[in-house]
Amino acid sequence: MIIDCHGHYTTAPKQLEEWRKRQIAELENPRHAPSKGSLGITDDEIRASLEGAQLKLQRERGTELTIFSPRAMGMSHHIGNETTSRHWSEHCNEMIHRVCALYPENFVGVCQLPQSPGVPPANCIPELERCVKEFGFIGCNLNPDPSGGYWKEPPLTDKWWYPLYEKMVELEVPAMVHVSASCNPNFHGTGAHYINGDTTAFMQFITADLFKDFPTLKFIIPHGGGAVPYHWGRYRGLAQDMKRPPLKELLMNNVFFDTCVYHQPGIDLLLKVIPADNILFASEMVGAVKGVDPETGFNYDDTKRYIDKIDWVSRADKEKIFHGNVEKVYPRFAKRNKA
Amino acid sequence: MIIDCHGHYTTAPKQLEEWRKRQIAELENPRHAPSKGSLGITDDEIRASLEGAQLKLQRERGTELTIFSPRAMGMSHHIGNETTSRHWSEHCNEMIHRVCALYPENFVGVCQLPQSPGVPPANCIPELERCVKEFGFIGCNLNPDPSGGYWKEPPLTDKWWYPLYEKMVELEVPAMVHVSASCNPNFHGTGAHYINGDTTAFMQFITADLFKDFPTLKFIIPHGGGAVPYHWGRYRGLAQDMKRPPLKELLMNNVFFDTCVYHQPGIDLLLKVIPADNILFASEMVGAVKGVDPETGFNYDDTKRYIDKIDWVSRADKEKIFHGNVEKVYPRFAKRNKA
Repeated sequence: MIIDCHGHYTTAPKQLEEWRKRQIAELENPRHAPSKGSLGITDDEIRASLEGAQLKLQRERGTELTIFSPRAMGMSHHIGNETTSRHWSEHCNEMIHRVCALYPENFVGVCQLPQSPGVPPANCIPELERCVKEFGFIGCNLNPDPSGGYWKEPPLTDKWWYPLYEKMVELEVPAMVHVSASCNPNFHGTGAHYINGDTTAFMQFITADLFKDFPTLKFIIPHGGGAVPYHWGRYRGLAQDMKRPPLKELLMNNVFFDTCVYHQPGIDLLLKVIPADNILFASEMVGAVKGVDPETGFNYDDTKRYIDKIDWVSRADKEKIFHGNVEKVYPRFAKRNKA
Repeated sequence: MIIDCHGHYTTAPKQLEEWRKRQIAELENPRHAPSKGSLGITDDEIRASLEGAQLKLQRERGTELTIFSPRAMGMSHHIGNETTSRHWSEHCNEMIHRVCALYPENFVGVCQLPQSPGVPPANCIPELERCVKEFGFIGCNLNPDPSGGYWKEPPLTDKWWYPLYEKMVELEVPAMVHVSASCNPNFHGTGAHYINGDTTAFMQFITADLFKDFPTLKFIIPHGGGAVPYHWGRYRGLAQDMKRPPLKELLMNNVFFDTCVYHQPGIDLLLKVIPADNILFASEMVGAVKGVDPETGFNYDDTKRYIDKIDWVSRADKEKIFHGNVEKVYPRFAKRNKA
């Protein structure tokens, strides 16, 4: 079984985006009382939004199941206030829940958190619990920078985040560390802010003892771990200079990388440098890069091809990458399968 | 001849840092009139600061000449105001000038710019001219984020920077895009902010027509280009999705990567993915990572070893990487050699 651990609902019916536009427009009106309202999206519209996109690509590429969450760019936690973010997150998560109910063989849910700049992450717990307990979701996406490119919250290792981590541990759900849109003109979203977010989070984990406090807490760092595997020597060396334990001991029971790296040499490096136990297959389709690579004739984000092409990774290790590790990182996925 | 294009004077005599500490302390005193003063460093102290460090390592590793600039972390443009930055930059650059005068065979100078948050980069022109015309420096370090981790200036492609670029073109000097210390607790300096700065700058260059406006402007992106070579497929794909020209055409006459990547698989990837014409040898010694890699028994930053070990890159290409490209990217270096 091949599981793609990183897919976003980038193709949702247009009513979702229209609702969001109305919500943002209403922020300008100080006398407007925000309300969640409803989307008016039919099951058929959901089916249509997936059949020609994620489902078609799953079939074509031979990936069977996608761990599916709301559009990352859409989270935009920097917009409005906590209520804005809560209403929007609830709608987005409910859409994922409907997708998973319509296609239980193809999708399993991961939620967006209703984060908001300066608001304690503990306030996300009710929505996390709802998604996990009522909807059967198996993880969450955690934005290390709800300010959208200005990085104003404390680092992920700060006690600011601890109440959320306690709940994650209790519920046995991991978080994918995933920034959202950048409103800082310096950072292109998918080309800089995403990758920087990944690199930043990993380095935060090196400098602190978060995983002593939470030995079972687990994070997936997407986009192949940002710059980290390419600079693995740098990170090993920095940890060593800082008298930190070796990376393996320090964080490799807690931190995992996905395979959203869109060319063969990048995937080769990832699989060479990072232990197979710490890699989860992913493509992020339909996502950041949609085109066909003229050098290969296939989509850049058809990451399964790159892994298939590698003949120096054992079958057992590839099985870990394609599905085994998912059961370890997402314990609720394992339980769901046994149920 | 083997040229290391990326070395900082991290071992300067203690008076330099003491001067800086006094300067920063005086910022607290509103009645103090800032003055440049002097350092009181002797030539012997300069020699002593280098003999056991950069010069020793040059000899041991077989690199002959280092393109040398003030300590990057020390630039800290976010501290104080424009005058603070000007006095400090002048001292730092004068130290480099003295190093190059004492060891003309071993070092050639690159200057720190007296940038300051919110101050037009045009104001750096006098110091750039002084360093190039009076000291014989061949390039500059340009900080894309003088705010030190809050990224408040316009992107490098903005017209805000154009007067400085005009002067760089006129003087025929390239810039290494190099951030300085981070005062944002989210970003570890050498482990996150440096690498993010590299990735960010490259993506800025993709999205704009800077090199149509300045066809001969040249930038070196250090630390192996941040995350860029590892995600080369992503960047090719993003440019393609945005209907930008292919990267080769868009920026490969203007953007170059150094080899400050501290493990064999990273260097392998860099040399596989990026054309040899766009790679400049560098180690950043004595710099970010000082230890010995227990996996190899050699210093992480002994990057020449990694390149030497590669047998699938032609001798001609290695010669470009080790020195040929320097003459192309730093025209004043070529002229100096012919003089």
